[in-house]
Amino acid sequence: MNILVLNCGSSSVKYQFIESDSQKTLTKGSVDRIGMSGATLTNKRHDGDEIRIVGEIVDHTVAIEYILAVLLSRNHGVINDKSDIHAIGHRVVHGGETFSGSVLITDEVIRILRENIELAPLHNPHNLRGISACEVNLPNTPQVGVFDTSFHSRMPKRAYLYGIPYSLYSQYKIRRYGFHGSSHRFVSHRAATLLGRDINTLKIITCHLGNGCSMAAVDHGVSIDTTMGFTPLEGLLMGTRSGDLDPSVILFIMGKEGISLGEAGTLLNKHSGLQGISGISSDMREIETEMQNGDKKATYAFDVFAYRVKKYIGAYAAAMGGLDAVVFTGGIGENSTLIRKACCENMEFFGIILDRERNESNAKEKVITTDGSTTKVIVIPTNEELVIALDTKQIVKELKAQPA
Amino acid sequence: MNILVLNCGSSSVKYQFIESDSQKTLTKGSVDRIGMSGATLTNKRHDGDEIRIVGEIVDHTVAIEYILAVLLSRNHGVINDKSDIHAIGHRVVHGGETFSGSVLITDEVIRILRENIELAPLHNPHNLRGISACEVNLPNTPQVGVFDTSFHSRMPKRAYLYGIPYSLYSQYKIRRYGFHGSSHRFVSHRAATLLGRDINTLKIITCHLGNGCSMAAVDHGVSIDTTMGFTPLEGLLMGTRSGDLDPSVILFIMGKEGISLGEAGTLLNKHSGLQGISGISSDMREIETEMQNGDKKATYAFDVFAYRVKKYIGAYAAAMGGLDAVVFTGGIGENSTLIRKACCENMEFFGIILDRERNESNAKEKVITTDGSTTKVIVIPTNEELVIALDTKQIVKELKAQPA
Repeated sequence: MNILVLNCGSSSVKYQFIESDSQKTLTKGSVDRIGMSGATLTNKRHDGDEIRIVGEIVDHTVAIEYILAVLLSRNHGVINDKSDIHAIGHRVVHGGETFSGSVLITDEVIRILRENIELAPLHNPHNLRGISACEVNLPNTPQVGVFDTSFHSRMPKRAYLYGIPYSLYSQYKIRRYGFHGSSHRFVSHRAATLLGRDINTLKIITCHLGNGCSMAAVDHGVSIDTTMGFTPLEGLLMGTRSGDLDPSVILFIMGKEGISLGEAGTLLNKHSGLQGISGISSDMREIETEMQNGDKKATYAFDVFAYRVKKYIGAYAAAMGGLDAVVFTGGIGENSTLIRKACCENMEFFGIILDRERNESNAKEKVITTDGSTTKVIVIPTNEELVIALDTKQIVKELKAQPA
Repeated sequence: MNILVLNCGSSSVKYQFIESDSQKTLTKGSVDRIGMSGATLTNKRHDGDEIRIVGEIVDHTVAIEYILAVLLSRNHGVINDKSDIHAIGHRVVHGGETFSGSVLITDEVIRILRENIELAPLHNPHNLRGISACEVNLPNTPQVGVFDTSFHSRMPKRAYLYGIPYSLYSQYKIRRYGFHGSSHRFVSHRAATLLGRDINTLKIITCHLGNGCSMAAVDHGVSIDTTMGFTPLEGLLMGTRSGDLDPSVILFIMGKEGISLGEAGTLLNKHSGLQGISGISSDMREIETEMQNGDKKATYAFDVFAYRVKKYIGAYAAAMGGLDAVVFTGGIGENSTLIRKACCENMEFFGIILDRERNESNAKEKVITTDGSTTKVIVIPTNEELVIALDTKQIVKELKAQPA
C-alpha cells in the first residue's frame, strides 16, 4: 500500500511517500515558506534524483498540489496516477484526551480536533489545514490521523495530574499529555527487537533528543510517564525552549520586564534553552564546537542539557522500579557522542557502563554499553513517518474489511 | 551558651531558647497574630510548664518584649537577667548568592539582606523586622543569621541554572537557590552518625516533607541539588503549593481566567498542592483519612505526592551516581507510614527494601529498611533550631576569640 505521510506546519509541509509493505520510502521532501515569497518544494527520490521548485505556493492546498505534481511527474515522480496514492497519514500534534490511538479522519474527528485547537494552538490548526487541503486534492483517498500524544494516553493519573486545583483539569483539561509519541513508540519497539525480547517484559527509557527533546518511561510497552507536559515546553532543555522551570520565575520575569503573556510564551519557547544559556546557538553541534573552544556559557548549556537527561533516567528508573534499556534517538541522540557520554557517565549504579569505542563508532544503530552492562544503552535512528505509514495502512485495511 | 533562636514570619515569631553546650531546649513557644486582634504568646518550658498570654502585640518589637518577659518571668521563666541571653540566632530564608554560610549580623549584612528582599518578598522583610526588634530590646547581644539557602550554596551550575537567557541570571539572579537548608544539613549529618560513617563518604537523599516540602541530594556532605528553586514553589507537591508545572500552564490559566500576576502567584502558592487536587485539605493526615474512606481525589493527591518523591529519589541517585541512604523528616516524613511506604515501594532496583514493622514502629528515629537493604531508609526528626543555635554559638565564639 502506498501511503503519503504528511507533517503540516504553519508554513511548511514535510512529506514522505512510503510503500508500507516493503517499508520503503519511494520519495520524500518538503514545501517551505508557504504563503511567503520564495516558497519552494524540494524533493529527493529514493534513487537520489533531486529537484527544487520555486513557486507561488499561497496555502496548504497549493502545497499539496505541488507535492502531487512531483509524485506524478514524468521525470521526477514515482507514480502514474493519483489513485496510486492509497491513503494519507497525517502527523497530528494533539489528540487531547479523546484519541488514544490513530483514527480514520471523519467529519466527527475534524470537529473534535477543532475543539482541541486551544490545547495546541501552534500546531493543530495547521494539521487541520493539511487535512482539508487533501480533501480538495484527493477527495476519495482515506486520511488517517496519527497523534503525537496517543502513545502517552495510558499514563496513570499520578503522572499526568499537575498540582493545581482539580477543577482546572476538569474544566480546561490541563494535564500532562506528552508528545513525540510516534518516535517513542518506534524506538522502544525497535529496542525490544534488537534485544531479542518481548517489549511486554521490558523497562525502557527513550530519549528523543532533537530540536525538541523529550523522554518517556516505557514500561512493558506502555508510556507511563514523559517529560513534555501540557505543551512541548516542559521537561528537558531544548534548542530554544526552557524545559522545567520554577513556576514563580515566569511571574517574576513578567513583573520585572513588564511583558505580556504572549511575550512570556515567546521568551520561554523561542529564546531559551541551549540558545538562551549559551547566547550562541540552539544547535547542539555549535554548542559542542564552542565548548571545545573553551566557551563557558556553551559549556553551561551542554552541562544543563546532559544533566537533565541523566536526572530523568534516574527518575524514570524509579517510576518503573527498574531499567533494562535506555534508547537515544533524534538528531542529538543519534549523532552526539559527547551528549551520550555525559548522560551515561558515572551511571554504574543504574547498570550502565558505556563502551567508548561503541559510542564513537559510525554505525547508525548500535548498542553502546559493554557486554557486561546490565542496562543496555542503544542508539536507534527514529522513523516517525514509518509509524504513521504503518498505522495508516492498518486502519485503512480494517476499513476495507468492514461490511459497507 | 544560651541562644535565643528566632524564626520571624509576617505575623508570627517562633522561638526556642537553647543551651548550646548541652543542646537542651530550656523553653520554647511562639507569638501569633502579631498586629491583629487576639495576638497571643504561648510558651512551653522544658519541665512541662505552659502559659498562654493574650496581649496587644502590635509589632515584632513588642513580640520580642513579650518573649523576653516570659524568659525572665519568676514563675514561668528560665533566666534571671537579659544578659543570660548570650546570643540570638535568626532563621533567615534567603541569603541570595552572597551568603554561603551563617554570618554575624552587621550593618553591612542588613544592607545586603535589604537588597535581596525581592528574591524572598514573603520572608526576608519579616526576618529583617525581627533583627531590628532584637536590636531595640537587646542592643548588646550578638545576632547571627542562619540562611535556609546556604546549605545549597555549593550546587554546581548544571543544577542551579535554569534554561532561560543567561542575562536573566546575571541581571536578576534568577537561579535555583533551594531552601530548608538547616533541616537538610541536620538530618544528613545525623544520618551519617546513625550509620556510623563519615558524611564525606556518603551519598544521601534527604526528604523534608512538611507543609513545605523539599528534597536534597547530599553528596559527600554537600547539597549538589535540591527540589525547591528560585522560590519555595518548585519541586514536590506541597500542602497548598503546586510544585513542578509546565511553565505554559501558568500562561494558559492567566489567559483563560484573566487573572493578574499576583493572583496567579496566590493560586499556585495557596490553592494548589494537596489542597488543590483533593479539594479537601492541605493536611496529609486528612488526605490519608479521606483516601481510606475511598475518596478519589484524596487518593490522587496522595499518589501524586508520593510519586514525585519517588521520582526525585531516582533523579538524585543519578545525579550522585549512587545512593547510600534516604532520610525522611518533617511532619509528613516523620509521621506518615503510608507516604514512606508509597515512596519506597518497588524500589529494590535502588537497593531499598522496606521493613514493614520498622516502618510502622513508634520510634521517632529509626532505620526502616531490612538489614539486607543496601540503601538504608531512615526516619530522623529534624531540628532546625539546634542547627541555628550551634551555628550561632560557633560564630559568637569566633568573634570573641578575635582581637578587638
